[in-house]
Amino acid sequence: MEFAPEIEAAIAHVRDDVARLHAELTRYGLVVWTGGNVSGRVPGAELFVIKPSGVAYDDLAPENMILCTLDGEVVPGSAGSDRHPSSDTAAHAYVYRNLPEVGGVVHTHSTFAVAWAARGEEIPCVVTAMADEFGGPVPVGPFAVIGDDSIGRGIVETLRGHRSRAVLMRNHGPFTIGADAADAVKAAVMLEDVARSVHYAREAGPLVPIPQDAIDRLFDRYQKVYGQTGEAGR
Amino acid sequence: MEFAPEIEAAIAHVRDDVARLHAELTRYGLVVWTGGNVSGRVPGAELFVIKPSGVAYDDLAPENMILCTLDGEVVPGSAGSDRHPSSDTAAHAYVYRNLPEVGGVVHTHSTFAVAWAARGEEIPCVVTAMADEFGGPVPVGPFAVIGDDSIGRGIVETLRGHRSRAVLMRNHGPFTIGADAADAVKAAVMLEDVARSVHYAREAGPLVPIPQDAIDRLFDRYQKVYGQTGEAGR
Amino acid sequence: MEFAPEIEAAIAHVRDDVARLHAELTRYGLVVWTGGNVSGRVPGAELFVIKPSGVAYDDLAPENMILCTLDGEVVPGSAGSDRHPSSDTAAHAYVYRNLPEVGGVVHTHSTFAVAWAARGEEIPCVVTAMADEFGGPVPVGPFAVIGDDSIGRGIVETLRGHRSRAVLMRNHGPFTIGADAADAVKAAVMLEDVARSVHYAREAGPLVPIPQDAIDRLFDRYQKVYGQTGEAGR
Amino acid sequence: MEFAPEIEAAIAHVRDDVARLHAELTRYGLVVWTGGNVSGRVPGAELFVIKPSGVAYDDLAPENMILCTLDGEVVPGSAGSDRHPSSDTAAHAYVYRNLPEVGGVVHTHSTFAVAWAARGEEIPCVVTAMADEFGGPVPVGPFAVIGDDSIGRGIVETLRGHRSRAVLMRNHGPFTIGADAADAVKAAVMLEDVARSVHYAREAGPLVPIPQDAIDRLFDRYQKVYGQTGEAGR
Repeated sequence: MEFAPEIEAAIAHVRDDVARLHAELTRYGLVVWTGGNVSGRVPGAELFVIKPSGVAYDDLAPENMILCTLDGEVVPGSAGSDRHPSSDTAAHAYVYRNLPEVGGVVHTHSTFAVAWAARGEEIPCVVTAMADEFGGPVPVGPFAVIGDDSIGRGIVETLRGHRSRAVLMRNHGPFTIGADAADAVKAAVMLEDVARSVHYAREAGPLVPIPQDAIDRLFDRYQKVYGQTGEAGR
Repeated sequence: MEFAPEIEAAIAHVRDDVARLHAELTRYGLVVWTGGNVSGRVPGAELFVIKPSGVAYDDLAPENMILCTLDGEVVPGSAGSDRHPSSDTAAHAYVYRNLPEVGGVVHTHSTFAVAWAARGEEIPCVVTAMADEFGGPVPVGPFAVIGDDSIGRGIVETLRGHRSRAVLMRNHGPFTIGADAADAVKAAVMLEDVARSVHYAREAGPLVPIPQDAIDRLFDRYQKVYGQTGEAGR
Repeated sequence: MEFAPEIEAAIAHVRDDVARLHAELTRYGLVVWTGGNVSGRVPGAELFVIKPSGVAYDDLAPENMILCTLDGEVVPGSAGSDRHPSSDTAAHAYVYRNLPEVGGVVHTHSTFAVAWAARGEEIPCVVTAMADEFGGPVPVGPFAVIGDDSIGRGIVETLRGHRSRAVLMRNHGPFTIGADAADAVKAAVMLEDVARSVHYAREAGPLVPIPQDAIDRLFDRYQKVYGQTGEAGR
Repeated sequence: MEFAPEIEAAIAHVRDDVARLHAELTRYGLVVWTGGNVSGRVPGAELFVIKPSGVAYDDLAPENMILCTLDGEVVPGSAGSDRHPSSDTAAHAYVYRNLPEVGGVVHTHSTFAVAWAARGEEIPCVVTAMADEFGGPVPVGPFAVIGDDSIGRGIVETLRGHRSRAVLMRNHGPFTIGADAADAVKAAVMLEDVARSVHYAREAGPLVPIPQDAIDRLFDRYQKVYGQTGEAGR
C-alpha cells in the first residue's frame, strides 16, 4: 500500500513518537518484560501505529512499530508488517473508530492501577493532582476477555463523555486515552501515581474528600492553563 | 531589565543551582512527568528563580529557568522569559515575600507525603531522623486551591515560627523551605523518607513515641553540628 | 571431559543465555547481593549451566557460569569449574532429571513472592495477566531445607501436571520453570509482578474473582498466540 | 602521624573498600541524601576508616574517607582530616573497641528496618534467608541519643554473643557488623530485604513459623559453605 507523501511523513512522525514513548513506561515502572503498549493515530489518515507483540522494550524502534488500519489490520508491506501487532490491537482500533477525538491509547498492568481493578473499585478523587488530571474519580470498566471487541467497547462506553482519560478495566488493568500518544502516556503515568498515593492514604485511615466545586475549578483551570501551550496561561 | 554585575552573577549562580537540583527530585522518585518544582531566592535582590511550567525534567537547564520578581511576575527580557513559570509560582513568591529568612522552596507530590496529606494527618515524630531534621511532627496546612494567594498563605501560616521546614498541604502535597534551594530540596527528600518509614511502621502496629526532651536535644544538636559547616562540629 | 562440536556449541549458547539473563533479575529488583540463580539445560545433552555461588552480579560472564551434569556435579575441567556452583544446584538438577520438558529454572527471593510464601498462601488468580501466564493460582510447595533432594522434590511434586510454571516454596521463596532459561526468567518476572499487585489489591478490600471459564480461555489463548512465534497468532 | 609501610598499605586498601562500598547503599536504596555510613577496621592497627559527615555520595572517594583511632579521634594530618567524620563515628569506635572480631560497621536509615525500629519490634525469623544470614530474629537495641557512648554500648550489648549481625536501634534504625566492611554492608542489604518481605508478609495474615531446629541447621550450614571461600563448600 502506498500513501501520499504528507501521509508518509505523518506516519514516520507517529512511528518515532510511539517507539520513543514506550521508554516512559519503563522509566516509571509501569510495565515489565514485554507487557504494555502505546499507540498513536496518524493525523489525516485512517491509520494508527502500535507496538509489536512480545518484543523486548530495548528492541523497540520506529521501523518495527506496526502500522494498522482502524479495523486493526496490519497494512501489508509496511515497515514492521512481518511481525504481529500487540495482542491489544483490536481494543486500540475500537477506540480510534469510536472516539474520533482520541489520538493516542496506552495500556499497562501498572501495579496500583491493577490493584484497584482487581477489586473493581474506582479511585476516589482526594488529591488535587487527580482533580487536575482526571476531573474526579477514575472509573472502572467492565470485565472483558481478549478476543473480540468487548475490551474496546468497555473502554469506549466508560470514557465517552467522561472527564477521566483513564479507565480501570475490571480484573485486568488500566487503559488511558489522550489527544495524542504523549498525552495518553502522560495519563498512564499520572494514573499510577495517584493510584499509589491514594492506596497508601486509605490504608492508614479515613480520607478527607475534596469539595465538588473545588474539583470542578481545578479541572477547569488545568485544562486551560497548564504548561507552555495554554493561550490563557500565565 | 538590567541588573548590576554582582546581581547578574548571583542570578547565574541560582539558575545553575535550581536547574541542577531538580535532578535530585527525579533521583529520589519524588516527582513524575513534569510535576514538582524547585525555586531559589537571588541573594541581595528582590528576585527568585523557578522552573518553567510543563517542561520535561530532561530538558531543564540554567537558561530556561525563569527569573521572577517577588510578586511572582516574570522579569521581561530575561533568559527563559518566553515561557510560563511553574503554575505554583504565586505560592513560592508569597513565601519569599513573607518569610525573609527563606532562600529556597520546593513542591512535590511525593507518594507518602501525599498519602498523609490526603488524610489531613500530621506525621508523628517517632524516628530520630525526624527529630534531627524537623524537630518534631511534620504539620498539615489548610486545603487551598491554586489561583490566588491561599496556598502561599497556608504555607506561611503553618511554618512561621515552626521547627519544621516541611508542611503537608491538605489534599495536595508537601512544600518545603530552606536556607537556600539545596536545603529545601534536602528537606523534601528527608520528608518523603520519613513519611514512608512512619507509614509502614504504623501499618503494622503501635508506634513507640520519642520523649520530648530527646526530640529537643536531637534537633538542637543537629542544627549546630551536622555536616562540614557547623562551627561547633566535631 | 570432551564433547562433540555440536554439544560444545550448544553449551556455549546456553552459557551466554544464562549469564545474560541474570541481568533481568537485577533489572526487575528480584534479587539482592549475590542471591538468586538462573540455569538452563543444554539441548541434546545430559547437562545444564548454572550461576556460581556467591559471585557478584556485575562479575557474571559466560565463562564463569558452571557446567553440571544432571546429578548436579560440576563437569571437571570445564570453564568455571574451579568455582562452586550455586548452593541451589541440587534443586535445579532434580528438576531437570524429573521434568524432561523443562529447559530452564530460576530461583529468587523476590519480595512479594516471599511474602506469600512466608504465610504459606497461594496467590489467587484475580487478574487476567495471571490467567494468561499461570492459568490460575500460583501454588505453594512444602517447607524443605537445603542439603538433600527435598527442595527439588517439592518443586517437582507441586508443578508436575500443573498449569503454573511458578511455585512458592513455603518460608523460602519462588522457583519458576520454563521451556528454556529465558522462559523461566519471564515467569519469575511475571510472578513477582502479580504477587505485588494482588498483595496490594487484597490489603484494601475484597477481591473480585475471575470466572473459571474465563481463566481457561485466557490461558488457552495465551499459550497459542502471544508474541511473534505463535503460528496461530494474529 | 606516620605508620609503617605495611600499615599504610592496609589503610589504603580499607580506604578503597569503604569508599567503594558506599555505592552499595545507594544501589539498594538504603540511604538518601548524605545519610548512612560504612566503616572498616585497618587490620593490624588500632585504626578504622569512616565516611566524612554530610558529604554527597557522588563525591565519596578513598582520599576523603577519614582515618580514626579506636577512640574515634581523627588521625591528624591524614588524608581527609580537614573534614569532620560521620556524626556516628563514636558509635563505630565503641564497637571496634569492644568487639575485636568486628572488622566493619554499617549504619543506615533503610525504610523497612526503620519501620520495625519505630515500633521497637524484632523481626521474626519466618524466611530461610533470615535463618541463613542472621540465625534467627533480628533483635532490637535500646533507645539511645547521639552524643556519648550510649549508641555504641546499645549495639555491643545487643549483639555480643548474638547470632545476628544486625540490630534495630529503637526509634532510630539499623546497625550491622561484619568480619570486614563488605560483610557488614552485605548484612545491611540482607537486613532491609528481609525487613521488607516480612513486613509485607505479616500485613496480609498470620506468618508460618520455621521450626527452631531447621533455623539452626540453616544457620550452621550457611556459615560453613556459602560462596567461594568456604573450605567445606561443595
